[in-house]
Amino acid sequence: MSSDAAAAFAPTCPAPLAGGDRILLGHGSGGKMTADLIARRFLPAFRNEYLERLDDQAVVTVNGSRLAFTTDAYVVTPLFFPGGDIGALAVNGTVNDLATAGARPLYLSAAFILEEGFALADLDRIVASMRAAAASASVLLVTGDTKVVDRGKADGCFITTTGVGLVEHAQRISADRARPGDAVILSGPIADHGVAIMAARADLELETPVGSDTAALHRLVLDVLATGAEVHCLRDPTRGGVATALNEIARRSKAGIVLDEAAIAVREPVRGVCELLGLDPLYVANEGKLLAIVAPADAPRVLGAMHRHPEGRDARVVGEVVEDPTALVSLRTTVGGRRIVDMLQGEQLPRIC
Amino acid sequence: MSSDAAAAFAPTCPAPLAGGDRILLGHGSGGKMTADLIARRFLPAFRNEYLERLDDQAVVTVNGSRLAFTTDAYVVTPLFFPGGDIGALAVNGTVNDLATAGARPLYLSAAFILEEGFALADLDRIVASMRAAAASASVLLVTGDTKVVDRGKADGCFITTTGVGLVEHAQRISADRARPGDAVILSGPIADHGVAIMAARADLELETPVGSDTAALHRLVLDVLATGAEVHCLRDPTRGGVATALNEIARRSKAGIVLDEAAIAVREPVRGVCELLGLDPLYVANEGKLLAIVAPADAPRVLGAMHRHPEGRDARVVGEVVEDPTALVSLRTTVGGRRIVDMLQGEQLPRIC
Repeated sequence: MSSDAAAAFAPTCPAPLAGGDRILLGHGSGGKMTADLIARRFLPAFRNEYLERLDDQAVVTVNGSRLAFTTDAYVVTPLFFPGGDIGALAVNGTVNDLATAGARPLYLSAAFILEEGFALADLDRIVASMRAAAASASVLLVTGDTKVVDRGKADGCFITTTGVGLVEHAQRISADRARPGDAVILSGPIADHGVAIMAARADLELETPVGSDTAALHRLVLDVLATGAEVHCLRDPTRGGVATALNEIARRSKAGIVLDEAAIAVREPVRGVCELLGLDPLYVANEGKLLAIVAPADAPRVLGAMHRHPEGRDARVVGEVVEDPTALVSLRTTVGGRRIVDMLQGEQLPRIC
Repeated sequence: MSSDAAAAFAPTCPAPLAGGDRILLGHGSGGKMTADLIARRFLPAFRNEYLERLDDQAVVTVNGSRLAFTTDAYVVTPLFFPGGDIGALAVNGTVNDLATAGARPLYLSAAFILEEGFALADLDRIVASMRAAAASASVLLVTGDTKVVDRGKADGCFITTTGVGLVEHAQRISADRARPGDAVILSGPIADHGVAIMAARADLELETPVGSDTAALHRLVLDVLATGAEVHCLRDPTRGGVATALNEIARRSKAGIVLDEAAIAVREPVRGVCELLGLDPLYVANEGKLLAIVAPADAPRVLGAMHRHPEGRDARVVGEVVEDPTALVSLRTTVGGRRIVDMLQGEQLPRIC
């Protein structure tokens, strides 16, 4: 690999970035500004066939085995929220980024950045939550690191988890594989995680409390693959929500996507908070939902497999991929209209994960 | 793995920790307090055969291949310093944690936590430095993540790099493998990195500038292994320095180590700064030095292999492993005395890497 690797590094030529010469919160939104930062800063510097795919994980071949490899930094605030905490999120989120390659998650690493003065009792709660999530997902946390920064130089606890998984199927699942006619399947109601965080931050008193949907999705994915269905793209729509994930797929695949608003479930209390705060649920983060784009003939068996899992009980076809070189994502509304669904612009809710 | 993995998670039972109920800077020192935090908090929660080794990386078997897997969070301040920056450090440090398993480094991930307002020009310098270090070490950065936190909730830029490498040798290299009689080999003069950071922070005007020794060590290690020498332990003595790395090995191996002060090189300007600031170079961080503990008969060929590399030109035998169930590390001083060299206590220099 040595000489190829060196050759793969093209010279960097940073172009101007939206927002001037400073990092803005929007660069971490997972939306358009994040995509710009990656496209103009990171991709030119590190360009290689794996990074170029812009998937949530790289699938590399080592000694004949296909391995999925993914990393995520977790900076969510508050650290503890209804339905979960940063620890569960850090384990499930990384497991899900392995799962969306169709990989069997095997091993995790965790790197903690702690602020001086952070309560050990809170660290214990976070560690216990990571342990439970890892045990439940049958992954082993095998290596780690701890750094401490002086008071005021971090915010309690940041965790970066990285995962390695084994890809045992023979399909190529990637954001550029959506084809006209494909069915867009969503595993359940959306926007729970973002609304849970938002409600916790705003101290909203909700009649029906909303909890994060944080959950590991690999068993759901492995069962879908076991049906033999032709699966083209898989995403867990986190930062930027369903709208942003589908826009990424549409752009990478150079195809359009038409969604059916009536098919996209939003639980009532979640819809209520969204209306209260002026949020479109399509842009709100999920941490336990799966988007699957599959060959149309295979949609019924994919749904059948999903329905057997608690995480996929409410799975439905929510749209279809259409011929459209401009890669537009649009929504057929319940009142018979049609509106364009763009990527998330700017920042909707910082530090959601 | 599923049921075994679940069984491997024993209940957590956090014990009191030095420093009361809050995280202190010393918990990130890499010394005794870090070891306590790991032993009392992380190990009981996540216990498994890999984590238990307390090496700087886990070596796991996937589909018949032995993979090294390691993660480190980088929080160094200042971000730019003589001889390097956080970017070079983040690549070389993770490459070295793969190298000290005798692995060939293959793939890296990088997760950035950026503070709102961070200058894009600084990000560009860091990314260019990571690119150069990765190209020079022939590793590919294949996946990443970017989060942005609000102003005042981080310190410019933190980077967590995680690496995957392939172990192709048949030896078991681990901190518990030192045996009485083994030779302790050090690849060059110590304390450059810590002194470079310290001088940069204190704005010291040095007659002879001191630069960080940040460098990738995998070629050095692979050439040592290619000699067929019996290599028992490998460490890059970073946080906590040579003293702490050797204490970890002594404890894990239940053997003593006797060092020869005259054989441990410290460059003159480095010694000068250490004297000025009251530091013992044995506790100061290195970022491009290798400690190798090898079967005594193989020391000459290990040295021969090291001497052929710029990073190992000044390699010497600096001590030996002795029978000692109390696992003491001691130093034969140049004046004929002997002193005990304990692990780093508390915090010597926060945010050194």
